[in-house]
Amino acid sequence: MTFEEIIGILAGVLTTVAVLPQIIKAIKTREVEDVSPYMFIILCCGVGLWTVYGILKEDWPIIVTNGISFVLNSIMLYIVIGNKD
Amino acid sequence: MTFEEIIGILAGVLTTVAVLPQIIKAIKTREVEDVSPYMFIILCCGVGLWTVYGILKEDWPIIVTNGISFVLNSIMLYIVIGNKD
Repeated sequence: MTFEEIIGILAGVLTTVAVLPQIIKAIKTREVEDVSPYMFIILCCGVGLWTVYGILKEDWPIIVTNGISFVLNSIMLYIVIGNKD
Repeated sequence: MTFEEIIGILAGVLTTVAVLPQIIKAIKTREVEDVSPYMFIILCCGVGLWTVYGILKEDWPIIVTNGISFVLNSIMLYIVIGNKD
């Protein structure tokens, strides 16, 4: 494995799991008033399109990391919208 | 421009600008209690490493999109940490 590949994998793992602390905080506190739903709507569209891009290019690392991101950001979006009046 | 390229550019733009509504909301309301600082710490590390990856591979689209993401997420992290007691 090259140095570039190690950096790329580490970068992909970090950007994919970044939303997890926000999901855990939201579930624990049940408070999401300060969280922008638009951020997660745009993120879901963005990583969803990255997944489509990966499918079109048959690039598995892009499909897997963005597919997981899509699921995690959708969970957070569901929590944010579910807690709005 | 191919269909794949259009999808890729659209995906890159969306994931790059997604944090903007959260920054605007935080500046307007001055409330960030429900926002996880860890999400933005991990995001900054992740997109920072993607920028390094782009530099190593001499891939300008990766450098530009993740460089902008790094700046925007750093601004949000600064707002979140600056508002903590």
